[in-house]
Amino acid sequence: MIKVGVVGGTGYTGVELLRILAAHPQVQVTAITSRAEAGVKVGDYFPSLRARYDLAFSDPASAPLKGCDCVFFATPNGVAMSQARALLDAGAKVVDLSADFRLKDRATWEKWYKVTHASPELFGEAVYGLPEINRERIGKARLVANPGCYATAVQLALLPLVETNHVDHSHLVADGKSGVSGAGRKAEIDILFSEAADNFKAYAVNGHRHHPEIVESLTTLEGAAGHRIGLTFVPHLVPMIRGILATVYARITKDTDFQGLFEKRYAKEPFVDVLPAGSQPETRWVRGTNQCRIAVHRPMDADTLVVLAVEDNLVKGAAGQAVQNMNLMFGFPEAQALEQLAVVP
Amino acid sequence: MIKVGVVGGTGYTGVELLRILAAHPQVQVTAITSRAEAGVKVGDYFPSLRARYDLAFSDPASAPLKGCDCVFFATPNGVAMSQARALLDAGAKVVDLSADFRLKDRATWEKWYKVTHASPELFGEAVYGLPEINRERIGKARLVANPGCYATAVQLALLPLVETNHVDHSHLVADGKSGVSGAGRKAEIDILFSEAADNFKAYAVNGHRHHPEIVESLTTLEGAAGHRIGLTFVPHLVPMIRGILATVYARITKDTDFQGLFEKRYAKEPFVDVLPAGSQPETRWVRGTNQCRIAVHRPMDADTLVVLAVEDNLVKGAAGQAVQNMNLMFGFPEAQALEQLAVVP
Amino acid sequence: MIKVGVVGGTGYTGVELLRILAAHPQVQVTAITSRAEAGVKVGDYFPSLRARYDLAFSDPASAPLKGCDCVFFATPNGVAMSQARALLDAGAKVVDLSADFRLKDRATWEKWYKVTHASPELFGEAVYGLPEINRERIGKARLVANPGCYATAVQLALLPLVETNHVDHSHLVADGKSGVSGAGRKAEIDILFSEAADNFKAYAVNGHRHHPEIVESLTTLEGAAGHRIGLTFVPHLVPMIRGILATVYARITKDTDFQGLFEKRYAKEPFVDVLPAGSQPETRWVRGTNQCRIAVHRPMDADTLVVLAVEDNLVKGAAGQAVQNMNLMFGFPEAQALEQLAVVP
Amino acid sequence: MIKVGVVGGTGYTGVELLRILAAHPQVQVTAITSRAEAGVKVGDYFPSLRARYDLAFSDPASAPLKGCDCVFFATPNGVAMSQARALLDAGAKVVDLSADFRLKDRATWEKWYKVTHASPELFGEAVYGLPEINRERIGKARLVANPGCYATAVQLALLPLVETNHVDHSHLVADGKSGVSGAGRKAEIDILFSEAADNFKAYAVNGHRHHPEIVESLTTLEGAAGHRIGLTFVPHLVPMIRGILATVYARITKDTDFQGLFEKRYAKEPFVDVLPAGSQPETRWVRGTNQCRIAVHRPMDADTLVVLAVEDNLVKGAAGQAVQNMNLMFGFPEAQALEQLAVVP
Repeated sequence: MIKVGVVGGTGYTGVELLRILAAHPQVQVTAITSRAEAGVKVGDYFPSLRARYDLAFSDPASAPLKGCDCVFFATPNGVAMSQARALLDAGAKVVDLSADFRLKDRATWEKWYKVTHASPELFGEAVYGLPEINRERIGKARLVANPGCYATAVQLALLPLVETNHVDHSHLVADGKSGVSGAGRKAEIDILFSEAADNFKAYAVNGHRHHPEIVESLTTLEGAAGHRIGLTFVPHLVPMIRGILATVYARITKDTDFQGLFEKRYAKEPFVDVLPAGSQPETRWVRGTNQCRIAVHRPMDADTLVVLAVEDNLVKGAAGQAVQNMNLMFGFPEAQALEQLAVVP
Repeated sequence: MIKVGVVGGTGYTGVELLRILAAHPQVQVTAITSRAEAGVKVGDYFPSLRARYDLAFSDPASAPLKGCDCVFFATPNGVAMSQARALLDAGAKVVDLSADFRLKDRATWEKWYKVTHASPELFGEAVYGLPEINRERIGKARLVANPGCYATAVQLALLPLVETNHVDHSHLVADGKSGVSGAGRKAEIDILFSEAADNFKAYAVNGHRHHPEIVESLTTLEGAAGHRIGLTFVPHLVPMIRGILATVYARITKDTDFQGLFEKRYAKEPFVDVLPAGSQPETRWVRGTNQCRIAVHRPMDADTLVVLAVEDNLVKGAAGQAVQNMNLMFGFPEAQALEQLAVVP
Repeated sequence: MIKVGVVGGTGYTGVELLRILAAHPQVQVTAITSRAEAGVKVGDYFPSLRARYDLAFSDPASAPLKGCDCVFFATPNGVAMSQARALLDAGAKVVDLSADFRLKDRATWEKWYKVTHASPELFGEAVYGLPEINRERIGKARLVANPGCYATAVQLALLPLVETNHVDHSHLVADGKSGVSGAGRKAEIDILFSEAADNFKAYAVNGHRHHPEIVESLTTLEGAAGHRIGLTFVPHLVPMIRGILATVYARITKDTDFQGLFEKRYAKEPFVDVLPAGSQPETRWVRGTNQCRIAVHRPMDADTLVVLAVEDNLVKGAAGQAVQNMNLMFGFPEAQALEQLAVVP
Repeated sequence: MIKVGVVGGTGYTGVELLRILAAHPQVQVTAITSRAEAGVKVGDYFPSLRARYDLAFSDPASAPLKGCDCVFFATPNGVAMSQARALLDAGAKVVDLSADFRLKDRATWEKWYKVTHASPELFGEAVYGLPEINRERIGKARLVANPGCYATAVQLALLPLVETNHVDHSHLVADGKSGVSGAGRKAEIDILFSEAADNFKAYAVNGHRHHPEIVESLTTLEGAAGHRIGLTFVPHLVPMIRGILATVYARITKDTDFQGLFEKRYAKEPFVDVLPAGSQPETRWVRGTNQCRIAVHRPMDADTLVVLAVEDNLVKGAAGQAVQNMNLMFGFPEAQALEQLAVVP
């Protein structure tokens, strides 16, 4: 049994962490912080958690985080980079769900996030928490940077192709679609029900922060050596609460059995499910679960491969992957607390 | 470990039963029937169940149901009444999620369901499966009639009032609102996305089949003795997938601490949660769970009590309550497999 | 051709006014104010209005409102009461879509709106803008208080009953359901897509501001003389953008042909459509239109009458009724600019 | 004033035609057919049309279509090809909203639509009804094949590029997203509210019927001469009622001012609106209107152009474009009856 703290418990990744951790037999959540709601019972604030959490939110300043074995940051960007150092020094392991440690190149990070990084010395130590690439290193890490939601889906769709060098790396297209919860639990006009419902749009067309994350991570893959990754990534907002579908288009340069390629690559992965040929995955098939489901298509046998990947942006794209990383870091079974089935319909 | 069969596995209550039973440590599902999909793997038909169910749907005619310890009917009305007899004779216990055994009065049943009942001799034996009234009798039953979704919410909202005789029984109003999954998984124009989305309407205003069910059940309560139950029940269709909210209006005839009355009545109930005074429950707080959450209001201290009850129509209103009943019938812990938290948001 | 100003052009009632007025042959919109967006072209802010409005938002302080023949206040409560006086003095007529002049009793108004009223001398002059009651007085008014959205639907459902004294006035129940746009275009967590979608709840159960408005208005009806109006009103939030359905329950005290009563009462009303007996109106039938459609039911011939009324909360419940009032005040055809059909589906 | 008939009046394109035609000052609708609803008043079937249509649906066999000046086919594929001949012979002009005359190559048509064409002699006469390409020919046509909904959006996004030969024609990607009404008003499980809401998926990944339509049409453009059009088109289903967003990706082969290129190409088009640079169009901006709004992006100044085009699939993608075509065929002002603004929110 380990003691776990959650910094930033009132956002969507926070409440999702609490939902998942409630079912974890080796975890005791001992601190949940929120400046705004300090003193309020978690079960009063999120009635879906009533009777499972007796804890109240505590003020970040006085929260008993240093006694924790593992601390999750479910905070906006910029918080973890200031606080991780002290927790690591106190012996805790840290999983950061924000973007603070996702890139390796500090200049790129500061360009995209537009602030000076507060703990640049941790850039080297932080392990990028995509178990399908970095499982072993995550197992030994003190500090894990949990990947972005789009970044997870797009990479899982591209990994087998880029690793084995079967497509034109210079002209990849990833058309991303996300449910509105991906925008977070923030009081903003754009994500009001009356603005986002019965509507569809692209956003951040000229550049989304998950773009450098994907490119940097793919560039470090063995098969990518010597290739420039040219990726066009356009995210879209879907009038649904949860879910991401990434539709990835790649020009085939070397033929192969692509279905087989994907099946083999992910054969042992507990949370990547390569669907039978011809499948057209739906986001609801993974709602509330840590699964990423992938289908591989080659429409009309032409020269373009289409890979479809679905995930729940709050689970495999955030809180679920964070718990998967925690399981790896503490030697727990990788799928522990992550075995619930999707609620369908 | 008991062997369980599900008759009618392709509807919404069927797939929900399969989701819940997958997490039950004492259950092995050995038969899932579907005439239309016989031979198809359950996991191919419902990809959300992939890897958890290796079984294929079997034809109802040849399905190995008689070897089952417990059989659930997740079928349209009219199926269970023909098949329950043989299964009971073979030693199985039966939980019927349809309406075939919900009423005690045969004439009323035949008037509302417009067919001759095929097994009238079982009317007497069937126990109405609302544990909050009939827990003990369910524990001894061979045949349980699982209540209707609206009927569950409305009764739980009214029980403490009717039992203790604090309101005018002759003029109760229940304004029901249900998600679209309550209409079942049927190819009908009215419940198409393009018809039901961004829209709201009442239906069955002149009489819904849950009306006689509620009235008959309330009439048998002790406190109701000698009172006619005069109930106006109007259901409405909400553009959401799951969830029921019942808003019940009752004229107060005898004052009391109504909050306390409800809290006391349901203090030991594992699946009825009386919320703190002033709460305004939301259907998502119980999405995917077996909870019914209730709030009691007396607006502006006037003479009308307003009780709000939320449930997931497919769980406490159907499959979850059916598993709760099975747990009681087999002596398992009542909440087994029913402890998942709501997926919020 | 009259000159029209809109104060508060960036909210939902504001943009709806602009949409409707764009089709009005006798109106030229000459000023649209917004403090936050001053200087921004209306068509850039609301691209749905591109090419129809060349105007930019102007700062309220410097907007040329005094040259207008008619000024609409599409502002939060508290603005019109401060500014109407000066505009009236300058010769403009005013339609206030906020609640500032909706009540006749100042003490009640100040109790519910929790501020001191800035122009109590206008209480007497303001005409309550429900044409179905006050058509003639509206035609002569300088200042019209546009009714609340729920208040419009509930009153239209109750008018024929209360006027003719056929039901128990002391125990009326109005169960209201509204789309989310009724909450306005405000950056608030509760009305985010991820909070309000796939969800249903009641709100303001202990008292909504439309309650005193309905009660005061009904009390002044002739048929209501000598009767206390006892109304329980519970509003609910529906995951749809527009639309209100009011389900009104009244205990019958004197029998009559209720269908005929309603048809006769509204026979000449251009915007109240009494549907054929047995109809179950849907909010989408009036989406984007100024119609209120009403159905009258007496379920199972019992003693409770159920009246269903649908309207578009932003049209008949706000901007459309405001234009209807303007048409009456200026002697234009009452339905001018209000004849578009609903966009279905 | 012309007499107009609508064949197939109960589907979504049918009711949308009726909504639009109701506002057309030069049109009298004299026949609306429906086999299933023959004899039913249009206003009873579609209450949104009450009071505007006194007509009842007539049986296709006996409907007075031959007296019509213009007949619209709003029918499933396969109807118009059998009936158009006789109507043309009787002197009517025909606009077919189905796919029966959309292709020029009969073999391709029969391969994709899997039936023998009933009137192959009309292939040559039918004019493809995209006014932005064929305005003059439409003006002289007796028989117009109204384009598909996706085909309209994708072509309008690609036209300026393909005509002027600035991108790699062999590797175009069109990622389409459509509201559910695009699937029609058919009783099918897949488009039930409970299946399609809060969900997102791709479909027809291996080949959609709008693919050959787009490719054939683009191939006939002047700039495309000598180039093979290599298009990958993947449609997706969005949980909204109306709207299409096409995201088109093209590799730039020759640099230019792409924003200017689009603005110039569409400068005189009444229904194509090139948005200011940097815009990110939303489907609701065109809901209920005949506009197609387009934005041109070159993300991070890389080599891939991204064009975003939105339209209402039932208006510019179907009924609105059909009325636009009728206006051209009869010499009416092109925008007549098509000037309503979008209902937002």
